[in-house]
Amino acid sequence: MARFSLNQATTKRWPLPDLVAGCVAAGVPAVGLWREEVAEYGLDKTATLVRDAGLAVSSLCRGGFFHEEDWYDNNRRAIEEAATLGTDTLVLVSGGLPGKSRDIDGARRHVGDAIGALVPDARAAGVRLAIEPLHPMFCSDRCVVATLGQALSLAAPYPADAVGVCVDTYHLWWDDEVWRHIEEAGRQGRIAAFQLADWITPLPEGVLLGRGLPGTGCVDMRRFSTAVHDAGYRGWIEVEVFHEDVWARPGAEVLAEAYAGYRAFAA
Amino acid sequence: MARFSLNQATTKRWPLPDLVAGCVAAGVPAVGLWREEVAEYGLDKTATLVRDAGLAVSSLCRGGFFHEEDWYDNNRRAIEEAATLGTDTLVLVSGGLPGKSRDIDGARRHVGDAIGALVPDARAAGVRLAIEPLHPMFCSDRCVVATLGQALSLAAPYPADAVGVCVDTYHLWWDDEVWRHIEEAGRQGRIAAFQLADWITPLPEGVLLGRGLPGTGCVDMRRFSTAVHDAGYRGWIEVEVFHEDVWARPGAEVLAEAYAGYRAFAA
Repeated sequence: MARFSLNQATTKRWPLPDLVAGCVAAGVPAVGLWREEVAEYGLDKTATLVRDAGLAVSSLCRGGFFHEEDWYDNNRRAIEEAATLGTDTLVLVSGGLPGKSRDIDGARRHVGDAIGALVPDARAAGVRLAIEPLHPMFCSDRCVVATLGQALSLAAPYPADAVGVCVDTYHLWWDDEVWRHIEEAGRQGRIAAFQLADWITPLPEGVLLGRGLPGTGCVDMRRFSTAVHDAGYRGWIEVEVFHEDVWARPGAEVLAEAYAGYRAFAA
Repeated sequence: MARFSLNQATTKRWPLPDLVAGCVAAGVPAVGLWREEVAEYGLDKTATLVRDAGLAVSSLCRGGFFHEEDWYDNNRRAIEEAATLGTDTLVLVSGGLPGKSRDIDGARRHVGDAIGALVPDARAAGVRLAIEPLHPMFCSDRCVVATLGQALSLAAPYPADAVGVCVDTYHLWWDDEVWRHIEEAGRQGRIAAFQLADWITPLPEGVLLGRGLPGTGCVDMRRFSTAVHDAGYRGWIEVEVFHEDVWARPGAEVLAEAYAGYRAFAA
């Protein structure tokens, strides 16, 4: 279980103290946290709770959303929060098209500029920015970065230890170029995070909460796991699933299934 | 209006005789037809109705669905139907992953093999196969061909006048590689169909019926239209929108808006 991490979003309704206790009881070594849930429980209180329990924080989700007006201040706060929580990885979801814009190239350029503006703060805080490409169905409203290739292009101007990429099976499984891009990301030392979720249909309204636990859908998890391993990644492997049906279930039960999925497929 | 075509799916609830009369009244020169609706009205009856009205048939949707058992016979029937209707273009939606398969490469190879098996029938009937990449959100259940680049790779073994590609703005707008692929498709003379629909959010449950009329969403229609024109395409431009709200409206009204969208953006 040395590299397994439970992303908090998978058990969204599990109160943080219960989640931490459940992870400790199950021998889980790490959790991935979300800013909203951390803020709700309290930043310092969360940091203390997790540290005292001996859990590592594999990543903080999420910075980014660069289409919003206050992106700079908000992302600087996210970097500080990551440092306070003791994680070296801040996942960035770039944001979508601003307002009524149809200028996707312009939006992607802005993402690159915004990341550049944040690199000094991130380095000073010892936090690495992990650009996460989201599935193209989120391109207009959540993330104009839709492929691992685009994420690598955006990361290219910056040192690999400052700006990496996040490989999430749910977002990338359909892309025949992803294997080449994982290799390239490995060569550059840019794989900063690896997240598992499965693709199931039908998609729900709004499409955000349609992910399956690893093994319940059509993603070739083993192929991803092997590719990321062969690319040299040895960091945390998070299970990160958003689904109302999963959230409705007891946290410990979901944790056990998330771990079983990780065990079955992780290289 | 010389190159405008109303795809029947845009006004799904408009009975075929009314649709044909509405197109004639509006001066629309062509319609795109769907097999299910044609079968319901009767194949020969549809062919006669449309021909007698002086309308061209820009394309027949759809062949493909190669993950189904009877794909060969079914697609041969689709080719015959296209010929009977007097169109030279059969749009192929490849189909998704078969059963519980996670082998997306295998599914894509099968699509290539299936197209190869159909080429002799298609050529004999004077019908060109148009491979349509669908948005990656349809990859598992409807279409493993998710980018124009993949469609071009699948078409590559066959002459351009036998196997082309369908460029649909709705499915391809998010892809930064699409401009390069449109140019390449033009160089090869493979653009067989061009369809307009806009991307709007939130997506509905099941995501199939979430398209907007051109101009109502975030797709840069003019850029697509110019790119396809610059690539040498001079064929029909179909407006093809699936949305319950659009279907609920009077056909003539939707036709007028579809045409207005085409006028506003077509090069």
